[in-house]
Amino acid sequence: MLELLHVEHPIVQAPMAGGADTPQLVAAVSNAGGLGCFGAAYSSPQQIAEYAARVKSLTARPFGVNLFAPPAATPSATGEDVVRAAKALAKFYAELALEPPKSVAQPAYSFDDQLHACLDTGAVLLSFTFGALSAEQIALVKARGLLVAGTATTVEEARVLQQRDVDAVIAQGGEAGGHRGTFARPAESSLIGLIALVPQVCDAVRVPVIASGGIMDGRGVAAALCLGASAVQIGTAFLTCTEAGVPECYKEALLHAREDQLVLTKAFSGKFARGVANRLTREMAGNDDVLPFPLQNAMTRPIRNESGKRGDAQMLSLWAGQGVRMAKRQRAGDLVREVMSDAAAVLERITVRGE
Amino acid sequence: MLELLHVEHPIVQAPMAGGADTPQLVAAVSNAGGLGCFGAAYSSPQQIAEYAARVKSLTARPFGVNLFAPPAATPSATGEDVVRAAKALAKFYAELALEPPKSVAQPAYSFDDQLHACLDTGAVLLSFTFGALSAEQIALVKARGLLVAGTATTVEEARVLQQRDVDAVIAQGGEAGGHRGTFARPAESSLIGLIALVPQVCDAVRVPVIASGGIMDGRGVAAALCLGASAVQIGTAFLTCTEAGVPECYKEALLHAREDQLVLTKAFSGKFARGVANRLTREMAGNDDVLPFPLQNAMTRPIRNESGKRGDAQMLSLWAGQGVRMAKRQRAGDLVREVMSDAAAVLERITVRGE
Repeated sequence: MLELLHVEHPIVQAPMAGGADTPQLVAAVSNAGGLGCFGAAYSSPQQIAEYAARVKSLTARPFGVNLFAPPAATPSATGEDVVRAAKALAKFYAELALEPPKSVAQPAYSFDDQLHACLDTGAVLLSFTFGALSAEQIALVKARGLLVAGTATTVEEARVLQQRDVDAVIAQGGEAGGHRGTFARPAESSLIGLIALVPQVCDAVRVPVIASGGIMDGRGVAAALCLGASAVQIGTAFLTCTEAGVPECYKEALLHAREDQLVLTKAFSGKFARGVANRLTREMAGNDDVLPFPLQNAMTRPIRNESGKRGDAQMLSLWAGQGVRMAKRQRAGDLVREVMSDAAAVLERITVRGE
Repeated sequence: MLELLHVEHPIVQAPMAGGADTPQLVAAVSNAGGLGCFGAAYSSPQQIAEYAARVKSLTARPFGVNLFAPPAATPSATGEDVVRAAKALAKFYAELALEPPKSVAQPAYSFDDQLHACLDTGAVLLSFTFGALSAEQIALVKARGLLVAGTATTVEEARVLQQRDVDAVIAQGGEAGGHRGTFARPAESSLIGLIALVPQVCDAVRVPVIASGGIMDGRGVAAALCLGASAVQIGTAFLTCTEAGVPECYKEALLHAREDQLVLTKAFSGKFARGVANRLTREMAGNDDVLPFPLQNAMTRPIRNESGKRGDAQMLSLWAGQGVRMAKRQRAGDLVREVMSDAAAVLERITVRGE
């Protein structure tokens, strides 16, 4: 896997579409010998090209790019749906002196436009989540020389991805922060802990497995490799790094968060994602007036942008995985180096007596 | 930890009160160099003594015993509660030609009676779950020369246990089969994946940590040790062993179960537990006419006993952890030996390059 990706360390930085994965973060991870990845799912083809150019100005090393697999049917919302969703969020718009949107626009570009833009970025890896790209799409990407990795949260999903001929499966454990990649079953029934998920996925598919969810340091990396993973994907630990493009109040929230105070919520985007509980998740709990993904994301964007500017973490999506107590302030390159030297030390130190 | 327990291998067989952990199973694990443990929570003092005598007739090696920490208030149910709970289960009683119970009796013995019986068993370890024993109770057990381990599902719970002066903390991940040990928060918000839970608990307490949940083979053992655990507790993998005292249809259900078809249900006992979904869990889903633990357990016992006799797994509690696809038929001693030799091989094979 490492040879294929041309990287030194089995560390993939989790793509975090929405601004956290700045070109500086991606480049810092790649420069340290991991694989920086940027989430292009909310970006236009032109933004993808500009982003890739910035990454390449900061590193000559390999990097990856990530997209959201498109749903079978384009999500839609009636005017009434939008009114109801806006009403559910009315208190937050009002507090921030914002006008609730009257409609949510679909992007002018298609998934295929994004995919083609990604092929021109110079990335070595295209990863995706939320579904399975078609065998034709995957063949197209591979024909352009990129490796392709899909995200699975169950053994069944991993098998679907292998049938589509991916080069690797990203096994996302229930611990993971941010959006659930689940596509074959309800997200709530697909929260499989990584220590159980990785060996079962490894037993079921022939391709390399990248372990994702709750891994924050060298102990987690060593554990994931023992479980059979070829590499790990790390997200939350990078969010408190200097280079991460999230508001300071988000970083502070992570540095004080507890693993038992995270929630799965649809309130921010319309799709289940794990993050630190705050006023918005609590007040929206049980409220079904939420638009389908990604339309709800557009509905809450003004709230998230404005509260981020004000330094108020109570209305922000504070995506975080269950290893959040291990978050600390550091530079992303130092994190990669420390994780690897700790993992090496752990694997050297731990031995057991077999029969 | 191993030295303290006088065992060769860092394998604790999870106590499984209710019959699965036969004296044969416990002794087989201990004879293979692990620590067999029996769940005494549903047993009278006399039954505990008889059970221990049988174990000691089968092994001279150390073994452990487990109890449920008593709730702050004794659970109770009115006659009306019992009628409603019986009505919710009426279809199952009727199908099995059983008379629904008119009342649920409290046991004639107290927790303290059980605790004193455990002290006389010759066990080297008393473990407990569902709460924290008092500092006085723990001191009493330690004064009799037993080690004491409590179960935590969050960092906060581990800290409470340490304050009570336990010798070790059993960190139960969200993957675990059977009852959730959670006591400080709602069970649903305490499903922390083991790969995230173990290092965070290790960082928070000074005592050894025993990792529990989703560990089925040498890969899981190696991973748990890398995370910082001193030993692991394995339950589900022992359920399909020859010596396990569960109906054949339960073993067959586990051998065909998928990790994404497990549910957390209160229907069988009144307390959340993870098992394979079946007709009873599906038809009781969302039904709140369930007595508090352990009264509901008494309500469903006739159903479970009779359906077990009939070989019908659709009304049995099929407790299982998320590693269930790795279950296989074998002898318990062979499982311990295979797990250890595989763990040793994994730890020898996996190396990474630090900086």
